[in-house]
Amino acid sequence: MRRYKAIIAYDGTDYSGWQFQTNATGIQQVVEEVLASLEGAEVRVYGSSRTDAGVHATGFCAHFDMATPIPPENLVRAANARLPGAIRFMRASLAPASFDARLSATGKEYQYRIWRSEIMPPHLARYWTHCRRELDVAAMADAARRFIGRHDFVPFSANPDRELESTVRTIYSFDVTASGPRIVLKVRGDGFLYKQVRSMAGFVLAVGLGREKPQAVDELLAAAAPRTARVETAPARGLFLVKVFYGKIRSKG
Amino acid sequence: MRRYKAIIAYDGTDYSGWQFQTNATGIQQVVEEVLASLEGAEVRVYGSSRTDAGVHATGFCAHFDMATPIPPENLVRAANARLPGAIRFMRASLAPASFDARLSATGKEYQYRIWRSEIMPPHLARYWTHCRRELDVAAMADAARRFIGRHDFVPFSANPDRELESTVRTIYSFDVTASGPRIVLKVRGDGFLYKQVRSMAGFVLAVGLGREKPQAVDELLAAAAPRTARVETAPARGLFLVKVFYGKIRSKG
Repeated sequence: MRRYKAIIAYDGTDYSGWQFQTNATGIQQVVEEVLASLEGAEVRVYGSSRTDAGVHATGFCAHFDMATPIPPENLVRAANARLPGAIRFMRASLAPASFDARLSATGKEYQYRIWRSEIMPPHLARYWTHCRRELDVAAMADAARRFIGRHDFVPFSANPDRELESTVRTIYSFDVTASGPRIVLKVRGDGFLYKQVRSMAGFVLAVGLGREKPQAVDELLAAAAPRTARVETAPARGLFLVKVFYGKIRSKG
Repeated sequence: MRRYKAIIAYDGTDYSGWQFQTNATGIQQVVEEVLASLEGAEVRVYGSSRTDAGVHATGFCAHFDMATPIPPENLVRAANARLPGAIRFMRASLAPASFDARLSATGKEYQYRIWRSEIMPPHLARYWTHCRRELDVAAMADAARRFIGRHDFVPFSANPDRELESTVRTIYSFDVTASGPRIVLKVRGDGFLYKQVRSMAGFVLAVGLGREKPQAVDELLAAAAPRTARVETAPARGLFLVKVFYGKIRSKG
């Protein structure tokens, strides 16, 4: 058996996320079926992360083992010829048998995209969260910055019971940039709790709308109390898993 | 009755085009239903053009009459609150009773988008035509330039019988620009025959692939013979109606 590492992009709009749910198909399932058709046998695909229904990825990572000796570049071509257009292998490589897409990951980068304008253009509607009201971008950047560091993120996780181990994570960078109607949050960390990025994005949005002060981030993190209704989950459509790191992570670039 | 002029954007992927077809909903139908719900009576909406199934628009134009005196900016808001996210009123204004979205139009601008790369990113797949092979952009620009002027475009129309009047049209500009994997064709003219833009885009693509010479455009236009299999219709997904002109048209800008 040879172990492959694949970088996968997907439009999550019509899927239940990476994993199968009873109400919709999971990306994992679609990829497994395509690889099984190439292998002539079942192939189990292991992803770097759960992603929720509707969340997108440009740089999701997965590993799997196949007996068929397909050069990685041919595997990319063969998989893409069979996958729906909403899912694409962007590249693949051979990996050591010790490589595990989830366990070997040293960090992840997510982007959260907000379109701040009266009208949401139809061609962006699947990939941006719409915000009609004015946003205080400087306050949002101030709030985002306060998440950086090692904290117990339990106030920003939807369902901490789902976490098997610690709820302590480290955020290396959290930037907010604005260009016309586009406001993009970019966060890098060693790992994220269930719905943590969308919870942080929801809170940064609340700061932008003036409902919360940036300092409230410090207070919530210091209290480390379970999440309350004060922290809202921002919509899935604006969230992209951009990159999974293996090895050293830079906070920028 | 007051006459309104509305600029409408839409993601044409899931529609039969502007007009209703037996197999799918038309954008017109969706807009008429929404306006009828505001008017409390039937509203007939007149579009600037037919657009084919799967074709997109950022600047489609339509006119309609309503008895309910809604300020145009409120109409935009009310319509968008009821329309699906794939269709948006971008703006609206009151127009003189003589204004007709189709008959008053003095020209149109279309863009045709080609993504030239081995892999089509999922988040662009609905809005770009994928081309895996190398394209000679200089030859494409040369071919596009040769369409400029007043010609009988019958060799580049899918079904000239559908044209009620002349098949002579004037193209004011036809530019090809490339930026990384993005190749964008931008064409302005006084009007276009049925499938003319996609036929011209298909031929420009054939030139880019080396199957045709740029000079073949001159030959086909000079012969003015009905279209043959030599002219292929480029896929709908890459086509955007960008702007409808009323009054003087510039060839650039």
